[in-house]
Amino acid sequence: MTPDDLMGFMVEVFPQVHKDFNVEAVTEDGVRMRLYVTEANLRPGGTVSGPSMFALADVAIYLATLSRIGPEALAVTTNGSIDFMRKPSANTDLIAEARLLKLGKTLSVGDVLIYSEGVDAPVARATLTYSIPPKRG
Amino acid sequence: MTPDDLMGFMVEVFPQVHKDFNVEAVTEDGVRMRLYVTEANLRPGGTVSGPSMFALADVAIYLATLSRIGPEALAVTTNGSIDFMRKPSANTDLIAEARLLKLGKTLSVGDVLIYSEGVDAPVARATLTYSIPPKRG
Amino acid sequence: MTPDDLMGFMVEVFPQVHKDFNVEAVTEDGVRMRLYVTEANLRPGGTVSGPSMFALADVAIYLATLSRIGPEALAVTTNGSIDFMRKPSANTDLIAEARLLKLGKTLSVGDVLIYSEGVDAPVARATLTYSIPPKRG
Amino acid sequence: MTPDDLMGFMVEVFPQVHKDFNVEAVTEDGVRMRLYVTEANLRPGGTVSGPSMFALADVAIYLATLSRIGPEALAVTTNGSIDFMRKPSANTDLIAEARLLKLGKTLSVGDVLIYSEGVDAPVARATLTYSIPPKRG
Repeated sequence: MTPDDLMGFMVEVFPQVHKDFNVEAVTEDGVRMRLYVTEANLRPGGTVSGPSMFALADVAIYLATLSRIGPEALAVTTNGSIDFMRKPSANTDLIAEARLLKLGKTLSVGDVLIYSEGVDAPVARATLTYSIPPKRG
Repeated sequence: MTPDDLMGFMVEVFPQVHKDFNVEAVTEDGVRMRLYVTEANLRPGGTVSGPSMFALADVAIYLATLSRIGPEALAVTTNGSIDFMRKPSANTDLIAEARLLKLGKTLSVGDVLIYSEGVDAPVARATLTYSIPPKRG
Repeated sequence: MTPDDLMGFMVEVFPQVHKDFNVEAVTEDGVRMRLYVTEANLRPGGTVSGPSMFALADVAIYLATLSRIGPEALAVTTNGSIDFMRKPSANTDLIAEARLLKLGKTLSVGDVLIYSEGVDAPVARATLTYSIPPKRG
Repeated sequence: MTPDDLMGFMVEVFPQVHKDFNVEAVTEDGVRMRLYVTEANLRPGGTVSGPSMFALADVAIYLATLSRIGPEALAVTTNGSIDFMRKPSANTDLIAEARLLKLGKTLSVGDVLIYSEGVDAPVARATLTYSIPPKRG
């Protein structure tokens, strides 16, 4: 699936949240995603909220998986871990670099580095596992 | 801090999100929090989104910490892990039972079980670590 | 399976490590396990090594699972997270209180609190997921 | 610190375990470590035990941190997460590629990919956080 395919799928199945994100690229081993940072994502001290970064990591591994297996709305996250390492820059979009580490028949596992756009050191890292439903015959 | 104190603090420092949550009780070792489940939290298949559950776990440990140390807006999450174990019930609020496992000078650690209200088996579990800023003299 | 059944199974399938552990009890929702702390587990500063605590948590959820489904040597860990919260007491065994949070056909999930024997505050917490192989017909 | 410096430090402070490991290289952003796989690490089905892989990841981030800050025996792990993704090859050493993602004054965070030597797809991934003690004056 191309970035346009993935965004079209987002619009269809995630009408509540697709406007927060953009698929920047499908990369060799995953995807690059953008979170448009707005007032809604900010927290005291001007930082981006943890759940916003978790959401970015979650959708990035979801779409990285779908970019390989095709549209499968019912893949669900079974597990995630996240480390918040640095304070994001104020008023700056976040960029997630997601890579798939495993893509099996029933599970995919990927990790993500999240950056404030234009800054070298990552602000967060995360790992997500997705359960892929069996194909209907 | 009482449930009313904690909700007043939420209104003040989290104007974007306080309406999604309610502090049901301050318990012996933590807090009980409610996530009002609305269309915005739902995902394909009628399930509540993973990031919504992460957000509930995150705010529950935050407020469990503050219920012991007083209002400290600048406490920040440094790490989290979450397991999604069962599909939440449709159109049912989520209840988080958060307990503090450690409350030190610089870190608090707590874990959370999340339930669909009225259902015995938990839908998710999470652990969060918060960094507590040093007191200004 | 009783504690004696579980230890008999350990002797058979984990000949390398069974002597390090004891099943103290099969509890309502899991098991209680002991790690015999010896010189081999210690690290600089007199603390018990992190991998020793991970091993204790891992075997505790494994045996909690088997205590419900019967001997199944090929269950494998798929995921774990652990928080080291306090320094264990010197020269004191560790006790793990493991509880199962989910026991499905293909996955079990449990969490563990680890204590220095006789001390109230936990030294570590962990969560483990096990994959249960399908029954052979 | 060079690989020889790091192994010399291991011999001194981890007399119980240094023989299980070798520092293969100090890399641009971390270290490469080897776990000598022996009978003691094996589990039913011929797989390497999860705790052995956790131990490899743990020591790799520890030494990656020390390779930058110098010998500091009292750095302690505060948190870890690990995903076991594929079955390791039988009778094959494991190689960990560890990279530091953050090296602050009080915390270091790194992640690790673990491979069966000579096989392209990783068998496990892990993330570890270390707490670095303050310098004595």
